[in-house]
Order: sequence, then structure tokens, then C-alpha cells
Amino acid sequence: MRPLVVAPDGWSIDILDQTALPHEEAWVRLGKLEDAARAITTMQVRGAPLIGVTAAYGVALAMRADPGDTALATAVEVLGATRPTAINLGWALRHMVEVLSGVPAHRRAEVARDEAGQIAEDEAAACRAIGDHGLAMLEALRGADRSQPVRVMTHCNAGWLATLEYGTALAPVYRAFETGLPVHVWVSETRPRNQGWLTAWELGRQGIPHTVIADNAAGHLLQRGEVDVVVVGTDRTTRAGDVANKIGTLLKALAAREAGTPFYAAVPSSSIDWEVLDWRQIPIEERSGAEIHTLTGRARTGRVAVLRVGPETTAARNPGFDVTPAALVTGLITERGICAASAAGLASLFPERQ
Amino acid sequence: MRPLVVAPDGWSIDILDQTALPHEEAWVRLGKLEDAARAITTMQVRGAPLIGVTAAYGVALAMRADPGDTALATAVEVLGATRPTAINLGWALRHMVEVLSGVPAHRRAEVARDEAGQIAEDEAAACRAIGDHGLAMLEALRGADRSQPVRVMTHCNAGWLATLEYGTALAPVYRAFETGLPVHVWVSETRPRNQGWLTAWELGRQGIPHTVIADNAAGHLLQRGEVDVVVVGTDRTTRAGDVANKIGTLLKALAAREAGTPFYAAVPSSSIDWEVLDWRQIPIEERSGAEIHTLTGRARTGRVAVLRVGPETTAARNPGFDVTPAALVTGLITERGICAASAAGLASLFPERQ
Repeated sequence: MRPLVVAPDGWSIDILDQTALPHEEAWVRLGKLEDAARAITTMQVRGAPLIGVTAAYGVALAMRADPGDTALATAVEVLGATRPTAINLGWALRHMVEVLSGVPAHRRAEVARDEAGQIAEDEAAACRAIGDHGLAMLEALRGADRSQPVRVMTHCNAGWLATLEYGTALAPVYRAFETGLPVHVWVSETRPRNQGWLTAWELGRQGIPHTVIADNAAGHLLQRGEVDVVVVGTDRTTRAGDVANKIGTLLKALAAREAGTPFYAAVPSSSIDWEVLDWRQIPIEERSGAEIHTLTGRARTGRVAVLRVGPETTAARNPGFDVTPAALVTGLITERGICAASAAGLASLFPERQ
Repeated sequence: MRPLVVAPDGWSIDILDQTALPHEEAWVRLGKLEDAARAITTMQVRGAPLIGVTAAYGVALAMRADPGDTALATAVEVLGATRPTAINLGWALRHMVEVLSGVPAHRRAEVARDEAGQIAEDEAAACRAIGDHGLAMLEALRGADRSQPVRVMTHCNAGWLATLEYGTALAPVYRAFETGLPVHVWVSETRPRNQGWLTAWELGRQGIPHTVIADNAAGHLLQRGEVDVVVVGTDRTTRAGDVANKIGTLLKALAAREAGTPFYAAVPSSSIDWEVLDWRQIPIEERSGAEIHTLTGRARTGRVAVLRVGPETTAARNPGFDVTPAALVTGLITERGICAASAAGLASLFPERQ
């Protein structure tokens, strides 16, 4: 399954609206730059790899309307301002500018569209490779005994909804299921946006056993030995192996270390920031407090309802991501294999980036 | 403010319905045993100290209807089965049986009612004392510089709604506010039951500065140095200083240790389990998965609504509490002072229990 496909007109893209899931499966057509930017901002598309691909297609849509240099600069500015933390966004935009420089105006739209398609294929291939490397890790964890499932805990959604295929953190799970290795997934609901329900929806469609928990329950389950391995995605991983990911990831990493449970991040190389040395430099998106103020409660009628609570008297703070320092990370699962979460580890797999 | 008062009839008790807060301030009258048991089970009253007091009044209501030994045994059984983790419940019931043994039937109701009132007064006094000891701790943390507030992070609700007055974890905050020590409280929403909004409601009524966060954000704020101290309540603390409290507490303790931030539990002696040596023996309440399956989402109409998601394809696990081992706890704030979270620490304050 892919959450983004090229529409029959050959230019627009159709995306699965992730703000409607898991309640409704609705596809939305993005026909122009502004559509693509809005889809990223409102999180109709989300997940670092998918954000990058959507932005690349956004550039193509902008070039189709106006292939001039000013229009290209505007497209990069508009798309670049949508969300700050995922590095794939900036990477994709820089890459598109690089590819389009020197391309004559009358060919730019087509070149941009084809390049966006190539980025999508590259991401899909990276996810498949991450799945294979991660599967080997799960098999090694389980050993010869296949009577019990490997119990994987994840956070947020790093499945095919966040990418182009398979996903990153969920790719090993999908590969395990395909190859008959029994697997069970602990799915954290991932407040405030509940992306855990996207993961539950994905896994439910495939019939993969899973259980949803409140984010608060992760420490207890790890402490009681009910988790064999934690695998998460990433929005940006530094060259030193520090992992920026959805808010709450850090808490799971701390609890995993305390429990002696391995903690892996699935990291396609498009999510590696080769420039940042100090993870404190990674911009952390601060999202609207409205996501916190909107909650379920009992209304005056006695019925359970959605209510907006106390914005007058109560402030809300809503950081979208946190950083798990490399010291807490057992390993990084990349498309080239698994390495230590360190500069040396990444250098061993990506020598050309040193 | 008290969340439980004796009704004008001198026997029933009026409780503030905490399932309606923060949306609505509704009082409910409990006139018989079954009312008291239901109020505890449905969490109309919650918080270890308040559960204990409500159970004691429940015994009095049962004795008023029938003061016989069988009725007493039934009352203890019904109330004892409501919730397993808070030790105050079992303590209050055992205490009531002890007090009522030997009391002639015609006087039992009155004795029970007066004893329940005494338990309530004792709890209120313990909270006030915890507030004073905790205030000294906050003052020492802040030192001479009062230009910036002391930034306290808490979890769940351990304010006056959970107790009889002041609360436990919030008592130092209320005392700080009363004495002019600037304070700001990070309030974790505390999924799945959102008791953080009870804390926000309490603090908002008093005009005490506070900010609500998703539970997932606690690690990030601690890591970035935005928290001076974490203070939580407890449902049961072992004689070794291990702290059972609302699910998610353990994650905050781990993040506090990583950040070098002190982590205190406010522990009235009624919440100490002098019998349990190994915290793994503490029964952890497993609550209904429906609390996890009910979430806010966008309905087909496009409006945000409450939806029940995927119970057919998706299991849910909902432990209500976790245990923070003593090694992660900087200190226990009791009504007799602050001590190390250890058997020796508690013995120094409560020598008569050794």
C-alpha cells in the first residue's frame, strides 16, 4: 500500500487523508503548490519520508503552473515553511532546486515530476531494505524458539502511511509477518495527535497482532519484561546518531535502557542530517496548544463529547518532537544495514559522506 | 476546598463528581453503601486518601441500614472490591472493623460515622503538614533568587480533589502560592483518564500559573532544563520507599534522573504499606480497554467527535498504575518531614512501625 499515488491526469497526486484515519479512508487530490503545502501543514500527510516526497511533488505542481525561477523560489519557501523538524523536507527541496538548475523552463515541470517519482521509488527501496535488516535483528532476538511472538514496541506511526511502502520502524514487523516469524506490536496511542491509531489501523488491515496502550503505560510494560525490543522511526538523526522523533520517544528509550531492552531507530539515509553535530541545534516544532485543549469529556448532557477545556485559565505547551541521545540507542537500522548509533557507526555504512 | 462533605442530614455525604470535571461542577449525594462503592469504582471520587475516607463513610452508611456483623462483613467485601492498588482503601476498612468490633449494634452507625470523620480530619492534617515540609524543600531549591518561579512538574492529580484539603503533591505548591514564593506547575494530561485536567482546574481556580502538556512531552522539558523539581502523589509506597502511583509516573522519574532533576513523592503515612517488601507484589489495577478505545477524532461529517475505534481488530491494555523503584526517588515528603526513599529513611520518621 502507498499513501500517495500519481492521479490519472499524470500530474496531481492523490493522498490518503491521515487526519480522517482511522475513522474514514478518504483520498484527497493535490493539484497545486498550495494544496501540497496545506496537506503537510495540516498533517494530511505526515512522516518524514512522505513529507519529503510530497514536497518534491509540490515543486513539480508549482513548475507546471509557472516554471520560472521566481516561482521555484516561492515554492521552496512555501513548502519549506510548513514543518521544521523532519530533515527530509529540506533535503528534498534542496535536491529539487539542484536538479532543476540549468533545466530550461519548458522542461522543468516534467523533470520535477519525474524526479519526485524517483525520490518516492528510492524511499520505497530504502524501506524494503530496512525491513530485511530489521528482520534479521528480530530473528536473532528470538533465536530458535518460535513458540512465542517477538514483542515489538513502537511509537507514533512509522509504517507505510509515513513513507511510501512498508514504512521504517514497521518494515521489520511486516517482513516478520510475511516470513512467518510470530510478532506482536505494542502500539502507543501517541498523544496529542493519536498517530498510534494509524499504526493500529495499518496492522489491523494486515491481521498483525497488536495492542494499543496509553503512552503512560510504556514504562510499566518494559519494566515488567513484556517487551523484547523497541523500534521507532526518526524525523532527523544526526551524524553522531542522536535520534529526533515524535514527542515521547525519549521516554521510551529511557525506560528501555532501564529494563535492559534493546532500542533501535529505523533510519533511511534521507533522514540523516550530516551537518548537525550538536543535537540541541535541531529545531523542535512547537505546535498549537489547541491539540492539547481538545479532549474527550462528559458534557452537561451526560454524553461523552469533545470539549475544549480551559484555554482561558490554562496554558498549553505542545512540542512535536524530542531527541533521544545516541547513548540510549542500541543501533540504527539503515538501508545499508544496522550500525551503532555513533559517528563511527554511520561512517562505516556511509563512508562517502565523511 | 473539600471534595467530600457530610450532607445536611448528618449521614449522607456529598461528593464533587470528578468524572464531570473540569467541564461541570456537580455534587452527588451518597446515601447508602452501594452509592459509596459505585462512586469509587466509577472514579467519581479518586485519589488514595479520598478513596479511603469515602470507604470509611461507606461503612457508616451500611451500619446505619443494618448494624449487624454480617452487614459489616458485606460492606467490607463490597467496598474492598472496588479498586485494588490504593492501600488507603484496605487500611480504612481494616481500621473501621477494628474500631467497630465490640461496639454494640445500636451505637455502631454513630461510631462509624464519627470515625470516618476522624480519618478525614487526620488526612487533612497530614496534607497540611506535607505542604509545610514540601514548601521548605521548594524554598531551598530556589534559594535567595525569587525573580523566577520554581518550576514544578506533577503527574495525575494529587491536589485537594484527591484528598481532603491541600492535597499531597500539590500541597507544597499551594503553600508556596500562599507565602508568595513564585511557582509554575507543569501539568501532564495523564491519559487515559485526563486527571491532569483536574489539576489544571484546581490550579486555575486559585490563579496559580500552570501549563498543560501531553504526557509524552515530560521527557523533553526535563531534558531541556525547564523543570526544577518533580513532585507526585502515591497510591501505595512500600516500606522500602518504592512508589506506586498513576501509570506514567515511572517515565517521569526516569527522565528526572537522566536530567539530574530531583523527584519527590508526597506520601501521607496512610499510603505507606508496611507489609510489602517487594514492590512486584503490589497489585496493579488493569482497567477497561474502553478507556483507550474512546478517543477524539474527525467524524465523517468533518466535525471533531468522540469515536470508538477498532475494538474489533485492536486490543487495548490499560494498567492503571506503575511502580517507581526507590532508587529513582530523591525523597519522600511525609507529614513528619522529608526522608530518603528507603527502609532506613522511613524508619527514621516512623520508628514505631519498625
